[in-house]
Amino acid sequence: MAAWLKNHRPVYRHADLKRLIDPATIAIVGLSRNEQSLGARALANLGNAIDANIYGVNPRVDELHGVPCYATVAEIPVRVDCAIIATPIDAVEPLVEQCAAAGVGGCVVFASGYAETGLPERVVMQARLAEIARTSGMRIVGPNCIGLVNNVRRLGLLFVSTYASTPWRAGPIGLVSQSGGLGQTIAQVVQRGGSFSHFLAAGNSCDVDVCDYVNYLVDDPNCRVIACVAEGLKDGERLLEAGERAHKADKPIIMYKSATAAAAASAAMSHTGTLAGSNAAFDAAYRRVGIVKVDNIEDVYEAAAFFAKAGRPKAKGVAAMGASGGACVITLDKAEAHNVPMPKPTAETQAELERHVPTFGSPGNPCDFTAQAGTDRTLYRACGTALLSDPNYAALVVMMPSISERLTPPNIALYSELAAAAGKPVCISWMSEWRGGPGAEQCESDPNVALFRSTDACYRTLSAWLDRETAVKAERPPPRLAKSDTQAKVARDLLRQAKAKLSEREGKQVLAAYGVPVTSDSLVASADAAVAAAISIGFPVVLKVDSPDVAHKTEAGVVRLNLADASAVGRAYDEIMTTAQRVSPKLRINGVLVQPMIGKGHEIVVGATIDATFGPMVVVGMGGVLVEILRDSTAELAPVSATQARAMLARLKSYRILEGYRGDAGVNLDKLADIIVRVSQLAVDLADQIAEIDVNPIIGAGERLIAVDALIVRADGA
Amino acid sequence: MAAWLKNHRPVYRHADLKRLIDPATIAIVGLSRNEQSLGARALANLGNAIDANIYGVNPRVDELHGVPCYATVAEIPVRVDCAIIATPIDAVEPLVEQCAAAGVGGCVVFASGYAETGLPERVVMQARLAEIARTSGMRIVGPNCIGLVNNVRRLGLLFVSTYASTPWRAGPIGLVSQSGGLGQTIAQVVQRGGSFSHFLAAGNSCDVDVCDYVNYLVDDPNCRVIACVAEGLKDGERLLEAGERAHKADKPIIMYKSATAAAAASAAMSHTGTLAGSNAAFDAAYRRVGIVKVDNIEDVYEAAAFFAKAGRPKAKGVAAMGASGGACVITLDKAEAHNVPMPKPTAETQAELERHVPTFGSPGNPCDFTAQAGTDRTLYRACGTALLSDPNYAALVVMMPSISERLTPPNIALYSELAAAAGKPVCISWMSEWRGGPGAEQCESDPNVALFRSTDACYRTLSAWLDRETAVKAERPPPRLAKSDTQAKVARDLLRQAKAKLSEREGKQVLAAYGVPVTSDSLVASADAAVAAAISIGFPVVLKVDSPDVAHKTEAGVVRLNLADASAVGRAYDEIMTTAQRVSPKLRINGVLVQPMIGKGHEIVVGATIDATFGPMVVVGMGGVLVEILRDSTAELAPVSATQARAMLARLKSYRILEGYRGDAGVNLDKLADIIVRVSQLAVDLADQIAEIDVNPIIGAGERLIAVDALIVRADGA
Repeated sequence: MAAWLKNHRPVYRHADLKRLIDPATIAIVGLSRNEQSLGARALANLGNAIDANIYGVNPRVDELHGVPCYATVAEIPVRVDCAIIATPIDAVEPLVEQCAAAGVGGCVVFASGYAETGLPERVVMQARLAEIARTSGMRIVGPNCIGLVNNVRRLGLLFVSTYASTPWRAGPIGLVSQSGGLGQTIAQVVQRGGSFSHFLAAGNSCDVDVCDYVNYLVDDPNCRVIACVAEGLKDGERLLEAGERAHKADKPIIMYKSATAAAAASAAMSHTGTLAGSNAAFDAAYRRVGIVKVDNIEDVYEAAAFFAKAGRPKAKGVAAMGASGGACVITLDKAEAHNVPMPKPTAETQAELERHVPTFGSPGNPCDFTAQAGTDRTLYRACGTALLSDPNYAALVVMMPSISERLTPPNIALYSELAAAAGKPVCISWMSEWRGGPGAEQCESDPNVALFRSTDACYRTLSAWLDRETAVKAERPPPRLAKSDTQAKVARDLLRQAKAKLSEREGKQVLAAYGVPVTSDSLVASADAAVAAAISIGFPVVLKVDSPDVAHKTEAGVVRLNLADASAVGRAYDEIMTTAQRVSPKLRINGVLVQPMIGKGHEIVVGATIDATFGPMVVVGMGGVLVEILRDSTAELAPVSATQARAMLARLKSYRILEGYRGDAGVNLDKLADIIVRVSQLAVDLADQIAEIDVNPIIGAGERLIAVDALIVRADGA
Repeated sequence: MAAWLKNHRPVYRHADLKRLIDPATIAIVGLSRNEQSLGARALANLGNAIDANIYGVNPRVDELHGVPCYATVAEIPVRVDCAIIATPIDAVEPLVEQCAAAGVGGCVVFASGYAETGLPERVVMQARLAEIARTSGMRIVGPNCIGLVNNVRRLGLLFVSTYASTPWRAGPIGLVSQSGGLGQTIAQVVQRGGSFSHFLAAGNSCDVDVCDYVNYLVDDPNCRVIACVAEGLKDGERLLEAGERAHKADKPIIMYKSATAAAAASAAMSHTGTLAGSNAAFDAAYRRVGIVKVDNIEDVYEAAAFFAKAGRPKAKGVAAMGASGGACVITLDKAEAHNVPMPKPTAETQAELERHVPTFGSPGNPCDFTAQAGTDRTLYRACGTALLSDPNYAALVVMMPSISERLTPPNIALYSELAAAAGKPVCISWMSEWRGGPGAEQCESDPNVALFRSTDACYRTLSAWLDRETAVKAERPPPRLAKSDTQAKVARDLLRQAKAKLSEREGKQVLAAYGVPVTSDSLVASADAAVAAAISIGFPVVLKVDSPDVAHKTEAGVVRLNLADASAVGRAYDEIMTTAQRVSPKLRINGVLVQPMIGKGHEIVVGATIDATFGPMVVVGMGGVLVEILRDSTAELAPVSATQARAMLARLKSYRILEGYRGDAGVNLDKLADIIVRVSQLAVDLADQIAEIDVNPIIGAGERLIAVDALIVRADGA
């Protein structure tokens, strides 16, 4: 089985995790008298729990910190749903086994010192916990995990000492984080008016991981938006599975993934390999299921809160208003920068704005109603109502360059009322450096008004919101890992016979089996045979060495193009063989290929890689220096539909070249998309056998599209 | 005179503005009893003024709100330095005249309704104020201006009603803003621990503008960093002048310019024109004098505060530490994203870190000292000291994923102590959503510790800080607008004789006068003459129409390349003339050019435009689709030195192609830089006569670089 599927199992469902995350009965195993112990801190965090029976497990006492204690979990008189294992590492495993035997629903393991140490014996210890989970059906969170919070029921199933003393406010955002520390970063939003329904940390994820949590929240009625923070995933398919379910449930996922830098260090043999780094695979996964990506952890909550308040957009454009002309200029800058349409208002709206806005202001979109609003407060209501009721606008951005005790809090309340009436969100661009000033907390906790700490973030998020509609409404891409049949067999046979790297001739045979147009060729072993082949093909021809050991033939000097007659062909044959010997006497040489010379055209690269997390991906880019130096390429998880393939082409910076530019015919985009579809299916079919495919270049001019070279690297051949 | 110099005057010096901004005696002209009037509000804002004599001007009373009043400014018994004109628009002009006559140092005009209305009579009214300033030597701020604040002396010379009641804290950052509202946005930072020395709004800038303010602050000892916000500039030379002086004084300028979107709408005839938009001109201006650009108004204060605290970097790399492994991963992502080097510590530092960091942490850079620091607080000091004393590091980033009452405030104090001892800044990446949590205000007001609201902003600013050293240490570019002599005369003569657009032949003659290598050509008027010229030049040749009316000859079908013999030349002549007639019978045709066919090479575009704000600019880009579709170009204010020209080439995405890539020789970069220098000098010399120069393409292969086409558009010809 290919590497990226080695750890695959389907995501857990809501019912699988319900007892763990939403328990009626909770046991703290290893509860001790010491108030600073992890168990005692966890118990304190359950101090305000709603409808929970709480027990301690401690063989030496009957009661601790006011809860009854038993010697073992099994002795607790009611069935335990969630057991918190609060002991040091050495005691964990037998206690977890006892829990499993006692029919506990799930365990949370705080202890550190497992696989995160990198020590082999500790990795094994963690694997044993995973095995208990697998065989017993009891779910395990952690180890090396701070725990989780079911905020709806005020259950702080975690050892961080501040939960009980922190303001409590349950809201519609479910937070999921691999790292407890980074999740805590976001959860602290409650200190300034924010809220969440759950905060679920995964730690080392021996059993339950972030994808399982996401999938749990998809079915949780208290959560309207899922915010997910991760460094990486062991099994990308599970994210796609949970993402697909979230997509069906119309529940937005906002995701921040760190560890983007490491990807840059990956080295791969072909150009395609270099391009399709792990970041590209994540981006493709997000696109596939409509996950909203954010680039900074500090943006996660703001974006999630907006999505929770905004619902689905009712139009394709946005309106903006403010009391400052300077702020209105900034709104236009940022709308343009993030491609957010700011259409003109309807005639009716325009007339209404003109009736209210002072002559030295600007009725329109954006609407500058001037600082006169400070004295004539009817302007806020009049302009806000007019813009929110205009069918052109999905949302209203209010620019707030300065904050005042007198105006800001009542205005936030007004905007909330207007937003609720219109069923559209109002976005506050809180530009002022008076960050936590009057109205900020009110705005954060308001259900209709979204707070943004910069105009840039506001429009960036609006852009993602409007773009998500495209993803939501698009046809679903073809199912992943659905293999085709006979073609695969042909290709498999060729691969089995081949060396670690396939020669060009072999690679093209595999592609041809999938219906990718490739140059015909003759493999010859002498100058005379080369000439004979050339005569049969027709001049001009190309000669190249055929060897699985030469990935970049042109650089190695073993290609001769545009050979016009027999003597040129004979000379070229000899030169190529001499050069090839000089490159390395150990080179495995199948012979020399004689091919028709394909005339000028656009050079396009189509390739595939097997991403460690997400498996087969297809990549397309412009060839030559465009792809190598300017990195003009785009990737998608394989397989792709023809529609997806066309969309890939449209994402290229050089798309205009392919469309036809300045009198050049470009290429037939449907035919090119068809090649992408075929290579993507090949990548899926052979995902367990290949590492990389590099169809480079495909020469395209109008209707003619043909691959003149190909490199296929076997999974065991890199 | 060329348009961009129409309004040019040198910036005012400190002495010119001293009485206005740092007055001993202040008069409020038009002070009224109404407490909500602008004058009364301004007076209230002076309630805590240090060492200021304040008078009112009101003909009907002797005293108002506790200050003595006089009927006119002239009657005030002491010389007035700064007069605030707080009346409605109609009363302003005579009062300003009286001030000028009475020897007042400067006036601040609050009234709106001038040029910002766009009404011609109001534009004239504003021009009359400007004329009073010019003839009297009295400086005028505004009109349509909220005023200014000299915070060092607690002088709120503005009508915004909150200054007197706002916390007072003078700090090293001078704020300059065209828009009072946007300046106020930043000035509100005092509400959360920030501070500034001055807040100077310019309003309509009939006399004093943001550049004058910046130049004032260059010489003000209370200001260490200048933060400037503007929508645009009437006279870019003044920004360069003030910027050059700030550069010499080693006083950083942080600048945010809005209205970037409008530039995208500019239409120009040549490719060069489209590329060198106003944003590019501003970027070039910033580079020239080392101004630090920020892209969001919300980033201005944070960046300025960092620069004020940081001083100059003592090394080229940065260290980071934190109690969370997840946060350390993010630090690496952002350092890489912003090209901030994070070198390894010295062996000594490494040993010291290893002595302290727990085994499950990561000693090194970044240093993950783990959450154990919460209980073993010596870790903060030990790791911080070790990293700050390492000569590899110019600054220390502390990752703060979560905030606590117990740890954060004492840690900020500790970091301040360590930073002061090391003479290096500590940057706090305040990741937590508890935005204004304990320690935030302390951090903002601390002189050694800089607060960042995201890790991205932190590294973005560190990158600008380290990059600024390159600008600071670079050789100064050649003086602007320094004209050369004889070449200009030759070019001027050619331009005078020429039509609105020069034909290719004429354009190349101008370029040749500046020593730019161009293809030789013969202008012929018959097929026979074309053949004779071709024979004399030697085959193969190129034929093109020579007309000032055809900007894009290839698209028009009036170019024939690679003509190998006499019959091909004769045929080409006829075809070109026929096609040209078909394009338009009105085409002015000078004849047909016969040129040598230049062999293959890289196509490069060098051009120039005259920016409305900054005047002559030189642009370089890769030719063909690379420049047209991928916009791979870069611009610099003209003239440039050879060093600057080489740096321009290095900024191109396609630089690796020019350097030589995959066996291709590339081009001689010094020779190409020399062409850029020459075109840049041409643009300066002829800046008042030309609109655009487009040397496109220059064909380059190794040592051979030659321009095969050129378009020069006269200033009156677009």
